[in-house]
Formats: sequence, C-alpha cells, structure tokens
Amino acid sequence: MKSHRKLLWFQTQARTEIIDITEEVDAAVRESGISEGLALIYPMHTSAAVYVSDSDRALTEDLASLLARLAPPGAGYAHDASDPKGNADGHLKAILCGHHVSVPVSEGRLDLGTWQCVYYAEFDGQRDKEVQVRILGV
Amino acid sequence: MKSHRKLLWFQTQARTEIIDITEEVDAAVRESGISEGLALIYPMHTSAAVYVSDSDRALTEDLASLLARLAPPGAGYAHDASDPKGNADGHLKAILCGHHVSVPVSEGRLDLGTWQCVYYAEFDGQRDKEVQVRILGV
Amino acid sequence: MKSHRKLLWFQTQARTEIIDITEEVDAAVRESGISEGLALIYPMHTSAAVYVSDSDRALTEDLASLLARLAPPGAGYAHDASDPKGNADGHLKAILCGHHVSVPVSEGRLDLGTWQCVYYAEFDGQRDKEVQVRILGV
Repeated sequence: MKSHRKLLWFQTQARTEIIDITEEVDAAVRESGISEGLALIYPMHTSAAVYVSDSDRALTEDLASLLARLAPPGAGYAHDASDPKGNADGHLKAILCGHHVSVPVSEGRLDLGTWQCVYYAEFDGQRDKEVQVRILGV
Repeated sequence: MKSHRKLLWFQTQARTEIIDITEEVDAAVRESGISEGLALIYPMHTSAAVYVSDSDRALTEDLASLLARLAPPGAGYAHDASDPKGNADGHLKAILCGHHVSVPVSEGRLDLGTWQCVYYAEFDGQRDKEVQVRILGV
Repeated sequence: MKSHRKLLWFQTQARTEIIDITEEVDAAVRESGISEGLALIYPMHTSAAVYVSDSDRALTEDLASLLARLAPPGAGYAHDASDPKGNADGHLKAILCGHHVSVPVSEGRLDLGTWQCVYYAEFDGQRDKEVQVRILGV
C-alpha cells in the first residue's frame, strides 16, 4: 500500500468562481504510481469546495445561483460581525457543497463516470488557495 | 492492503426515486474479502447520489420534497437552455446530497450504526445507472 | 498498511448544538500509529453530522440558523407522522451537512488547513452519540 500527497494551487479572478480541475487532479494520480485505490481531493480552506458534477460549464452558473439564494452574502451572519469584509456565506456554501470528495482510482487514473468532472468552487477568491490530493492504494 | 472494485446497476421506475441499496453494497463488501477498512460508494453519474440516513422509508419522501423545494425542476437553469428535457435540478440535488459516501468496514461487513441504511437517490431516472463500490483495507 | 478503529462519544446539552472535536479526533490519529493516509470521521447516527469548517465559533450559529431555515423542525414531515417527538428535520440537516468527512493524515496527525476545525453537529441531542474515527494508511 502506498500513500501519495500532492498540493495543487488555484487562484480565481472573481470572488465566486468555479473551475474544472480534473486534469490537474488526474496528473497527480498518474504521478503517484498508485494503480488501484482512491483519491481524496481536499481543499485546505473553508470558503472553497471540491465537488464532482456534469461536464457542462453552464451548470456551474446554476450551482452558483442556487448557493447565492440559499446562503446570500451579507445576510446578517454572526461570523461577519467581527469581520466587515464578510465571507460567512462562503463558508456556508462550502459546507452545502460537501467541501471535499473521494474518487475511485483504477489503472492509475481517476475512475470517473463518462460525464463527470472534478470542480473547484471558490467562494472567497482572488488569493492563492491550496487543494491537497491524497491518493491511497496499491 | 487490498483494493476491490465492484459495479452495481440500478434502474428506477420514476424520475425521482430513492431506494435502499444497503444489502447490495454489503454483499460487495463481503465478496471483497477485506476485513477492516472502508467502502467508498460512488455513483458514476451526476444526477444521482448515494447517502446514509435513517431506515424509515417515510424520510425518503421528506428528503425528495425538501430537495424539490430547494432546487425545483425547470426553474430557468442555464444547463436546461441547451436541453429541453431539463435535468439541471437533478445535478444540483445530487450535489446537495453529497453525491457519494464512505462507510467504515469492520469484520468483513459495512460498519453501519443501528438505524443506518445506504440509499441510492435517483434524480433523472428510468435508465440504467452504475454505482461503484470501492473497498480499501486489510 | 494499517486500519485503526476508534469510537468517540459525545453528548450535547441542547437539541441542536455544534461542538469542536478536532482535539479528540487528532488524539485518535496519534494513537493509531499511522503516519500517512486518511481519517474517515463518521457518525454512527443519522441526526448528527461531522463537517470541517472555519475555527470561528460564531460561524456555527450561522450554520445552525441556515439549516433551521432550509429544514425547519415540525414542518409536516412524513417521518414525524409516526413519531410525535419529530426529528425529521435533524435527519435532513445531517444529509445537507454531508454527514461525514475524510481528512488527510500526514506525519501522524490530522493534516488540516490553518483555520480548519472538525465539528460535530448534533441535531437531535441530549443523549449519547457515537462517532467512529477510521484511520487507513501506512
């Protein structure tokens, strides 16, 4: 059994922005030399999330809109009282998205379904953020 | 350490339908020969989710109703613009449910709490869908 | 490869209460003797969830308020029809929070981001509840 740790860095242009990171994560899996197991794809921050969904880019807008409706920015959050820039909504959105994912690894690659991509959802962006890919297997 | 990969297939009668798959997943764990570790239960699709919850069937109706309220079908989604049959709500519901789960494995079985079942939630059904069970352990 | 199983017990004073369990989980990782891998932190119940978020305690109030708005108690749930004490909202909130988490393990410790804590969110409290920490790695 092997365990491989890889850090990826992302920076978005907008405060809320969702980007496809499938290729970067798959490269980390390939370089691990692990053939069969799983990859944990884990943001080292709490106002960002990694999730798996459909390859259609338009759907990322739908998700951003849904999350803005469920947890709107600046809605009188206790967390924002001590910090006027206010990123409570970003933390809440990350929890609703599940924060991190585990994806099977087969034949040395991410074992994704046909239309699946791995997305990095940034909810308090415009600075460097770290995602750890932890691969475990044989 | 061993890694075992098993594919399960499910087809629902209704577009939205939640079914208990605990028995099928536990059978996959038993056949793996892995005694201690974890099972990743991972839909190979993005309009379906696997989650763990209470054994009461009535609760599956409550979840379906909640998700229909949070992400109603046909609510002007960007994803649906390019596809008139419109399954954007299904993708969004799968994300809100967390898409996949990891469950501990002990003594060669799923190590579930007393009232816990593993559910497959289909949000764009009436066709064959694949769930991968990936077991990792000793 | 090793697999280590540790049970932690928590009891909250209030029906809904969120507590920081980072220290207890990290102690379980240290005692496992596993250096590199991952920790699955898994409630053995379905009206409680474990999630990772920011260290600010005020944010736990914001999350409790958000969940109370999305899945209010006693809102005519089918699950509550057979049980007048009514904890359907608790089950639904646990699903929306993702129920359980996986966290990387490095150098024998939880490999958390700078501001990350592990939280236990109780949605039907005032009795003993069990959380399994399952550590897998080398």
